[in-house]
Amino acid sequence: MAYRIERLDKIIESKDIDAFLFTSSISIRYLCDYFYNFEIGSSPFHFIPAALFVVPSKITSLVIADNETDQLAGLDARVSIKQYDSYVYDKPLDFLSQFLIRIHELIKDTGMRKARIGIEANSLPHSLAESLLSAFPEIKFIDISDDIVLLRMIKDSEELALINAAAHLCDIGQQAVFKYAKPGMTELELFTLVRGDMDAVAGKRVPMMADLVCGARTFEGGGNPSNKRIISGDLILSDLTPCLNGYWGDTCNTVVTGKPTKSQIEHFNLVKEALDSGVNTVKPGIRASAVDQSMREHLSSAGGYKHHSGHGVGLAYHEEPRIVPYNDTELVPNMVIALEPAIYQNGYGIRLEHLVVVTLEGCKILSQFKHRFERE
Amino acid sequence: MAYRIERLDKIIESKDIDAFLFTSSISIRYLCDYFYNFEIGSSPFHFIPAALFVVPSKITSLVIADNETDQLAGLDARVSIKQYDSYVYDKPLDFLSQFLIRIHELIKDTGMRKARIGIEANSLPHSLAESLLSAFPEIKFIDISDDIVLLRMIKDSEELALINAAAHLCDIGQQAVFKYAKPGMTELELFTLVRGDMDAVAGKRVPMMADLVCGARTFEGGGNPSNKRIISGDLILSDLTPCLNGYWGDTCNTVVTGKPTKSQIEHFNLVKEALDSGVNTVKPGIRASAVDQSMREHLSSAGGYKHHSGHGVGLAYHEEPRIVPYNDTELVPNMVIALEPAIYQNGYGIRLEHLVVVTLEGCKILSQFKHRFERE
Repeated sequence: MAYRIERLDKIIESKDIDAFLFTSSISIRYLCDYFYNFEIGSSPFHFIPAALFVVPSKITSLVIADNETDQLAGLDARVSIKQYDSYVYDKPLDFLSQFLIRIHELIKDTGMRKARIGIEANSLPHSLAESLLSAFPEIKFIDISDDIVLLRMIKDSEELALINAAAHLCDIGQQAVFKYAKPGMTELELFTLVRGDMDAVAGKRVPMMADLVCGARTFEGGGNPSNKRIISGDLILSDLTPCLNGYWGDTCNTVVTGKPTKSQIEHFNLVKEALDSGVNTVKPGIRASAVDQSMREHLSSAGGYKHHSGHGVGLAYHEEPRIVPYNDTELVPNMVIALEPAIYQNGYGIRLEHLVVVTLEGCKILSQFKHRFERE
Repeated sequence: MAYRIERLDKIIESKDIDAFLFTSSISIRYLCDYFYNFEIGSSPFHFIPAALFVVPSKITSLVIADNETDQLAGLDARVSIKQYDSYVYDKPLDFLSQFLIRIHELIKDTGMRKARIGIEANSLPHSLAESLLSAFPEIKFIDISDDIVLLRMIKDSEELALINAAAHLCDIGQQAVFKYAKPGMTELELFTLVRGDMDAVAGKRVPMMADLVCGARTFEGGGNPSNKRIISGDLILSDLTPCLNGYWGDTCNTVVTGKPTKSQIEHFNLVKEALDSGVNTVKPGIRASAVDQSMREHLSSAGGYKHHSGHGVGLAYHEEPRIVPYNDTELVPNMVIALEPAIYQNGYGIRLEHLVVVTLEGCKILSQFKHRFERE
């Protein structure tokens, strides 16, 4: 029942905004809790999943297709729902016009014919922009995409609970990898078992990005699971990134089937130390670049990694603050970041990742699983 | 290695087009074979998956992020690839500017500064449209979205092979439902087994829409699998719609665990007859509405169904021609349609669906599985 409209105040002031028209699924999820599950792609019955029209301290309206009502139950009562005819079987599909009619009505009914309207230029379809500018030529569009990205960087307690739930799914998944992985099965067979456990705990299908690869593929850092068979001695890299109710979790472990080599054990321990060092570095006031440096330098003598050391996680699986060499953003409490140092050497890759939230004193690890390489 | 650029000739002529800028993933897949897997949502490293710029009989350029190269191997040699910096870890993300630079270059290099450019207004982002119109104020945009939808209605042999492969995955899935479904397991547990079999045959994760519901949920016609447990005597409705390499398959079966009631058997047989009647009605020259009528009337005395009788299937899981009461489109060879009559009565639902391609004489059923209700 999130309702974060009040957070728009700063944008209203700095950019002199009268109203907002949000068209990105992420912003809509952020501001009014409506989540469109992207897992099956775009619907043939609407051209964008939804639009959110906001006249601050006056009205918040979600314009949505009439066949997308199952997600509306928990919405805040301050959000008014404007449905339009979308799926019909007994007359031609006309969802684009029906959608536009609702938006035009909203602009007229709220007296916003000459307003300065904050928009998201990258997700606003040209057809919608054209339709509005031609009907209301005195409207001005102001792109506020970047402002929303920065707003989202610091999470509120409801968001932290949602990310925590996603992190718990990651724990389930990493435990499943450890439990099920064995020589002879394919990456896909392992993935099916892992995802099955995660879905069961969620009680529903959960969209998921997953690097789940074995053997030489770990050297590449990841990839989708395939029919490649795990053989004894293979490393298995499992970077599990599920999206639960719109919020992502993100963790990575690397395990071995059979007996690891001496250098694999050394590298695992080095990466684990680097991750611990990153976790210990995170605290309010420290720059993202310093967190990056603490992990990157720890592994440079072992070849290191040519990717980020981490990134913000929330409604996107990679968002601000990025934990990268150039980023001088200072961390503040309630940022959620994934840390993921790695070594890619000798034809294999080892990457370990935890999800943490910045606290007043340092950080708290949200993912509860222990990184383990071998079975005891 | 599809390259269907020549099919744009009619649009070029009827709308006096000099060049095209395609921004919808479906059209890009259609015209040059590049498929963006939507299953994990939009990437934080680009604002649209790709753009395809076409100056007919001169150049076809795919503008794409540098981290999306794994899908490019099979592309037709006539498609030139313009990559832009997208994911970088050692400097700030700048993918929007980098993307726009490539598009501007293409327009300049091909002399299209004053061109009439065919666009897809619903998928063209406002930011891209604005950027082009402000740099090249003499450009004219002409929306050609509907023309592409109609082009896609009739499939070529390569598309038929792709849909056939997706239909084969459906067969694997329906066999898996029949094999695995038993009282005591949850809908999600069944779904995990079914999807596992399908992914194994595909050799990779396959995006999938699925109604997989048991008991009273079948009366609602479908829904995502949940932790609801199957109990003896439950009907299980499985509408499996996988997307393999961009092309969808779509089939539905309804099975019973335990012993069906007399009315369930009668209703299953009635729906089966309706489906057979639909299949037998399909042939070139017949109107979509007549195919709809043949199935709908067959079931009207048993309560029937308040949805379409079927729909085209291809790069969308629901496309033209719709098999609905108002649609007087005449079927022609190489249209691919799903037929799905149903009965929702007595607290349960029974829906049976086949995927067929219109042939010179009638139609051929692409899904090979037999609709079965009970185990013999």
